[in-house]
Amino acid sequence: MTYDLCAIGNALVDIIVSTDDDFLRTHNVAKGGMTLVDNERASSLYEQAGAAVEMASGGSAANTLVGFTSLGGSAAFMGKVGRDQFGEVFAHDLHAQKVHFVSPPSPHLPTGRCLIFVTPDAQRSMNTFLGSATEFGPENIDAEIIKNSSITYLEGYLFDKDLAQKAFYEAAALTHAAGKKLALTLSDTFCVARHRAAFLDLVNGSVDILFANENELKALYETDDFERAVLSVRQHTDIAVITRGAEGALITAGAETAEISAQPIKAVVDTTGAGDLFAAGFLYGLTHGKNLAEAGQIGSIAAAEVISHYGPRPQKRLSHLL
Amino acid sequence: MTYDLCAIGNALVDIIVSTDDDFLRTHNVAKGGMTLVDNERASSLYEQAGAAVEMASGGSAANTLVGFTSLGGSAAFMGKVGRDQFGEVFAHDLHAQKVHFVSPPSPHLPTGRCLIFVTPDAQRSMNTFLGSATEFGPENIDAEIIKNSSITYLEGYLFDKDLAQKAFYEAAALTHAAGKKLALTLSDTFCVARHRAAFLDLVNGSVDILFANENELKALYETDDFERAVLSVRQHTDIAVITRGAEGALITAGAETAEISAQPIKAVVDTTGAGDLFAAGFLYGLTHGKNLAEAGQIGSIAAAEVISHYGPRPQKRLSHLL
Repeated sequence: MTYDLCAIGNALVDIIVSTDDDFLRTHNVAKGGMTLVDNERASSLYEQAGAAVEMASGGSAANTLVGFTSLGGSAAFMGKVGRDQFGEVFAHDLHAQKVHFVSPPSPHLPTGRCLIFVTPDAQRSMNTFLGSATEFGPENIDAEIIKNSSITYLEGYLFDKDLAQKAFYEAAALTHAAGKKLALTLSDTFCVARHRAAFLDLVNGSVDILFANENELKALYETDDFERAVLSVRQHTDIAVITRGAEGALITAGAETAEISAQPIKAVVDTTGAGDLFAAGFLYGLTHGKNLAEAGQIGSIAAAEVISHYGPRPQKRLSHLL
Repeated sequence: MTYDLCAIGNALVDIIVSTDDDFLRTHNVAKGGMTLVDNERASSLYEQAGAAVEMASGGSAANTLVGFTSLGGSAAFMGKVGRDQFGEVFAHDLHAQKVHFVSPPSPHLPTGRCLIFVTPDAQRSMNTFLGSATEFGPENIDAEIIKNSSITYLEGYLFDKDLAQKAFYEAAALTHAAGKKLALTLSDTFCVARHRAAFLDLVNGSVDILFANENELKALYETDDFERAVLSVRQHTDIAVITRGAEGALITAGAETAEISAQPIKAVVDTTGAGDLFAAGFLYGLTHGKNLAEAGQIGSIAAAEVISHYGPRPQKRLSHLL
């Protein structure tokens, strides 16, 4: 079996609660970011949160893969669920979208969950209890999958755990040994700030395709100057995909540049999954003979679908939208 | 503590999958109804089902209570969850909507789940694995809650289990002993067919307020003649609320009749919860000094909200829609 794309990421189930900015302030939730929380804080926040609008399988890289197969690509996921209902749901939703996933569940820890507060401005603020995802380590890397995938995609969030970092380096080495491409998403500004040196090392040394939003890129290069950050990333990665929210995206590849505008949509409901789905669309284009601008356009279409409703994954078959 | 409304119902988490009629035919799913399935069939159906559009707390009477408090009423729920993630979510979503719920979780069985297939015509076809809900029995009846509630509402689905039937009769006796009103929803045509004699006995002997859709009412009185069914129910219950889908609802109280038209909405997405929310709105009106037509109108507004999106519970605060 060969895959266009494989990915390593956190296995999470999202609990999505519609709330207001007052709630975020009162409960010290960092707006727009992803905060790692322990079981106690996760439970206490959940207790005080409103009723869920919905629950759904999530996890950044997993969302990307589901978008990728919804466009028609083939994909495999490496991550760690627990032996529980959320784990079953997470695995089911990957299998139902034809994403290969076989990792044995953790017997020790529950499946990770992400409590997502969505404010009226459609911004999402995430509070993640990693649970079983913390157990993901080098032994969960499937070398055969990496060797047989055109691109291996790493979810930056995993940098928060030493064991997963080790797995990343192993995956990077396997990818390049097989002559394949390595992609990384920086995931989150705070995550970049926490692991800046390690990220820089990986970006400058091994990453072929980098995904970041504007703020993450600036955090990586410790600059407020977007142009300067773009200049830096241009030198260090073959391709950089920089998303800019409503302003679209900028894609660089050596001296080449493509500017992508955001798809116009009626109403932005919940921005959860926007970056994940942009990556899905871009990678689908890249692995299916499209040029930078065309691939970016597919990313833009996929992102537009996911922000038009609650939940981190497409509700429509994306291949029908192209 | 006193409540406007208390209810006994199945504690369930819904897994909602968007699918087509071919899938229902291929997998022998009874369209539009609720089929009880064992764990094996539930797992096998789930394995073959597509990815979930979303998951959400459900259960017919629980949905009604959440709608009722969203309108501003006070409510308490009696039902049985398991000691697991779905059970936590179910209890959380009731508490977050200010519905009183304290029943200890079952140590033996997982929280029940309902696999709901939604077809492009917005019809929902439900496959329920009851799990811990089968353990609900007379010992789970809280006599104090019933004595202190203006109306006790029974979910017909529970008739499928002997233990729950016993609990129903006990609740009915407690309700009338306290001089309060007893409401029953017939829940499902097949459910009525399975337990016709027992339902008739309850409706003719104890029920003050009956909720049914047109087909359920016809099944109860074994007639294809709607007018004749209405004539029968008029004789046996103080109030009968008969929902008729897009045609609205008919409400009878002795010689009095109110016809309610359905609220016009842009697009019907998923009819899950329509009857539950109509009941919520009607009961809210009834317990808050409204006449039949006004109460029915509130039911119509609540039902319109829930069918305009996926999921069995309102996403908007219903009191804001009045």
